Amino acid sequence: MSRGPDKQFDPEVALEKAMEVFWAQGYEAASLSQLLKCMEIGRKSLYDTFGNKRSLFLKALEHYAQTILKSIREQLSAPGSPLANIEQTLETMQTIHGLPGSKGCMIGTNIADFTTADEEMAAILRSYLRQLEDAYCKAVTRAQAVGELNLSVDARELARMLLCTTQGMALAGRVLHDESLLEGVVKSTMALLKKT
Amino acid sequence: MSRGPDKQFDPEVALEKAMEVFWAQGYEAASLSQLLKCMEIGRKSLYDTFGNKRSLFLKALEHYAQTILKSIREQLSAPGSPLANIEQTLETMQTIHGLPGSKGCMIGTNIADFTTADEEMAAILRSYLRQLEDAYCKAVTRAQAVGELNLSVDARELARMLLCTTQGMALAGRVLHDESLLEGVVKSTMALLKKT
Repeated sequence: MSRGPDKQFDPEVALEKAMEVFWAQGYEAASLSQLLKCMEIGRKSLYDTFGNKRSLFLKALEHYAQTILKSIREQLSAPGSPLANIEQTLETMQTIHGLPGSKGCMIGTNIADFTTADEEMAAILRSYLRQLEDAYCKAVTRAQAVGELNLSVDARELARMLLCTTQGMALAGRVLHDESLLEGVVKSTMALLKKT
Repeated sequence: MSRGPDKQFDPEVALEKAMEVFWAQGYEAASLSQLLKCMEIGRKSLYDTFGNKRSLFLKALEHYAQTILKSIREQLSAPGSPLANIEQTLETMQTIHGLPGSKGCMIGTNIADFTTADEEMAAILRSYLRQLEDAYCKAVTRAQAVGELNLSVDARELARMLLCTTQGMALAGRVLHDESLLEGVVKSTMALLKKT
């Protein structure tokens, strides 16, 4: 019978903490000691519950997808105007990534962090980008279906643009000290969309 | 009088090599031993010529600005159609960042790599983003002046969108295995611009 206090830890809470560390720092810079400290668990509990650092990272990434990316997907597919959903999604990103100390997107930060030679990780990170792309594509397609965007721009291509533009916003937000740059991105993107 | 072979090194060549390492791996993951190996110099030469790792990084970043970012600025300000210059710049990024093993943008990769608490580095990285934003802004303003883009979209805001879109392209390119996603970004961006 264990008497270690970390045996009572909630794996969900610990994973959330690990996600925060990997999100802020990227995989490489996140040290095991820092992860253990933030997760408030011991080394043995970490290995028993989550496996090694890479395995923990993959679980944290999936947790990010199931929480943060899910909220983006839900915002894009909410009832009502699909174009307004796209606008609100961009405005949410403007607000979040314009905050001082913004961590950016956990997917994007780690795309930059892993060596490009790590093909297994590249495929995993690419699949999360694809989830986002698909969510944008559905919103664009719906906006075209209800006549808010015309059909002359290919929905898949526009989704890919929105994916890259928002990834750039999340990245730039890490070094901005105010929202003005991101506000310009949202205003001009929406101005262009509304002209189509 | 030194007899060390590394005393004959060309600082410019060594700096170019350092830039490649920091560009591919980011600041954190670039180890001193790897830098020394790629630069083909000894530890003392590195410190004597470039200072510590951070100082070397800042010189490598400036070298990136003077070469890679300069070529982007030149492409954007080339004689002829400003809108065609913007399109060619995007197409160049599609090609470069669509290559297998693409390193992305050294600025963007390191924005993701440094902790956001490093305000000195954030200000430096932000200033390079600003250089790019200004180059896009000049091209957009010229395109508006010659009637290739209408005046209804704010030039500064559109420049900020192009900055973020291309940063997202460079980032995504690190995990893509073909050009198709980036091609969609360029086609839809140009389609939207040409409708204004």
